[in-house]
Amino acid sequence: MPPKPLLMIPGPTPVPDCVLRALATPMINHRGPEFAALQREVIAGLQQVYRTEGEVLIFPASGTGGLEASIVNTLSPEERVLAVVIGAFGDRYAQIAAEYGVAIRRLDVPWGRAAAPEAVDQALRDDPGVRAVLLTHNETSTGVLNDVRELARVIRARAPEALILVDSISGMLAAPLETDAWDLDVVVSGSQKAFMLPPGLTFVSVSERAWAAHRSARLPRYYFDFTRMRRAMERGQTPYTPAVSLLYGLREALRLILAEGVDAQIARHERLARATRAGVRALGLSLLAEPGRESPALTAVLAPEGISPREIRRRLREEHAIVVAGGQGPLESTVFRIGHLGYVSESDVIATLVALERTLASLGWAVTPGAAAAAATAAVAPVAT
Amino acid sequence: MPPKPLLMIPGPTPVPDCVLRALATPMINHRGPEFAALQREVIAGLQQVYRTEGEVLIFPASGTGGLEASIVNTLSPEERVLAVVIGAFGDRYAQIAAEYGVAIRRLDVPWGRAAAPEAVDQALRDDPGVRAVLLTHNETSTGVLNDVRELARVIRARAPEALILVDSISGMLAAPLETDAWDLDVVVSGSQKAFMLPPGLTFVSVSERAWAAHRSARLPRYYFDFTRMRRAMERGQTPYTPAVSLLYGLREALRLILAEGVDAQIARHERLARATRAGVRALGLSLLAEPGRESPALTAVLAPEGISPREIRRRLREEHAIVVAGGQGPLESTVFRIGHLGYVSESDVIATLVALERTLASLGWAVTPGAAAAAATAAVAPVAT
Repeated sequence: MPPKPLLMIPGPTPVPDCVLRALATPMINHRGPEFAALQREVIAGLQQVYRTEGEVLIFPASGTGGLEASIVNTLSPEERVLAVVIGAFGDRYAQIAAEYGVAIRRLDVPWGRAAAPEAVDQALRDDPGVRAVLLTHNETSTGVLNDVRELARVIRARAPEALILVDSISGMLAAPLETDAWDLDVVVSGSQKAFMLPPGLTFVSVSERAWAAHRSARLPRYYFDFTRMRRAMERGQTPYTPAVSLLYGLREALRLILAEGVDAQIARHERLARATRAGVRALGLSLLAEPGRESPALTAVLAPEGISPREIRRRLREEHAIVVAGGQGPLESTVFRIGHLGYVSESDVIATLVALERTLASLGWAVTPGAAAAAATAAVAPVAT
Repeated sequence: MPPKPLLMIPGPTPVPDCVLRALATPMINHRGPEFAALQREVIAGLQQVYRTEGEVLIFPASGTGGLEASIVNTLSPEERVLAVVIGAFGDRYAQIAAEYGVAIRRLDVPWGRAAAPEAVDQALRDDPGVRAVLLTHNETSTGVLNDVRELARVIRARAPEALILVDSISGMLAAPLETDAWDLDVVVSGSQKAFMLPPGLTFVSVSERAWAAHRSARLPRYYFDFTRMRRAMERGQTPYTPAVSLLYGLREALRLILAEGVDAQIARHERLARATRAGVRALGLSLLAEPGRESPALTAVLAPEGISPREIRRRLREEHAIVVAGGQGPLESTVFRIGHLGYVSESDVIATLVALERTLASLGWAVTPGAAAAAATAAVAPVAT
């Protein structure tokens, strides 16, 4: 038997069998009552996940489309936007805004670090005219979790009317996020991360403040227009053909998620991340993320001196059928990333660490056999009382 | 046993079992070699379907997103565009362009008729500065097929450098279309029509003339940007996470389509349309489409005087489990539409006609029992030699 394949990248994540089967549901009329009921159920589920009583819109697109939607629906040309960039996806968010002619002020944070609330506060003091702040919740390129709650608090204190737009594509359901309680205006997530679905859907919450901004926002848009989507959804429809099969999958995934609870999902991700970090450290490796801000969704690992992360990944894939992700952009030759979000278990993490240990040993790196699995297991063992 | 459900709307269409099963394929790394091979195969298949040697790009979006892509990638603000509108989807195409600040000149044709080549020629003579012409191949709201070949010939003769942008979302694979031979610049299609897939993918061909226009086109775009997509595809990747499960389905659907051949698909649609028209006429009903320009993908039927199309659809659905589509916009109270594109057989069409006959009889309309099925069968019977 060849080794069982294990997909350990930060999205797309493995998909549970019942969700895969739901994708294969025969088509229905997207203008009929069955579709309206399907849409109603998944929206209600998304509101629970988002912890919002406001609207959550669904667009048939990748998460990047949701980021674009958050910009083009709330802003006008030349309005000033503070982009807090802590990695490749924060950079993408800023780029999208720049393409649409918004005036970008960047707060660039060294990759591997989280955004400091004081730095964001200072940037807003320096430029009181900022109309919106772009934040990344979980930065997939570096494995760093921003403290969105604290960042939002600082932003609200300094610029009460600024829009807070949040990329939570890889953060939602892996780390705590409270859309209403933290007063976030637009939060974007995507199907292929902790939602345990294939890619192709993006979810976008819209606060009252964001709706008010939307009414005067003049950036051009059609496909991603909030008003067209809201009006159609109110009638149980969509402004154009929805991605029906992915919505069937979403219904099934949300049933799984809500049966266990949102908090349980977040706790599981935190446990998987703790196990991964313990195992990696037991192998003598270092993390890219600053201590205390490590992502619960993925772990970015610095390859040991003299060993290429590409070679580590190649051996994991070819000898163990385990797929981990490479570093992005400037991190390509120094980092590999272990995804542990979505439909991933503790034994998946331990299997990955065991394979990593063997791979490093085969590359001449000194390891204590069994150390990684032992450390990971200990890290998630229940505390004796 | 309850009646077997039959989905007879102009998209989403029924999906073959093997394609449904392919949707349930477990996830892979979208940056890895398996994905590159998958993408290569489906692009080559799309080129065959499109009859082009040029690029066909795939975006994770509904067909409306493809229409938006065709506009924002080739035009600049205030450039003049001739929108040839023969129904609701032509109107949508014009609206998308208008949202982006393009100057629209509309050629409005009464709904139910095709665009006359002379009228398009006259419009181009009246406005020699037209940069692009928007055409609908098959108008889904009225069941009318435009003669794109002849329209393109007239446009090329009068305005050799104008871009010809074509919405072939419901036309591709149902009616002949030759991207290269007819010199079409951007042709948009979508997964949920004759491709026999669920919605969620749009396909966009780009001619050399369109690439040249793209280089100086200044409308803002990110998600739908041609250059980002082309560059990523050249490396076997995508600029953001692709809709992997739908691409697996597409591979399977293209294998089915190409095994039989594109011409065979088109011939099948023509046969289904002929059978539908014959059956509908045998019931004493009239078509919305002008004679000679009826769509091979769907048939828009005028409800008999005094009988509401909504009631016909309700009885078809509740008593026969057959779903047909309503009329759109101004046609809502006069028209219903029978879709016969995608994974639809002659027996599906005949079952629909039989149920329609019974439904009309139950509503007091005089019919000869068996007439619709007999006429449909005769219409597709092989000619004795």
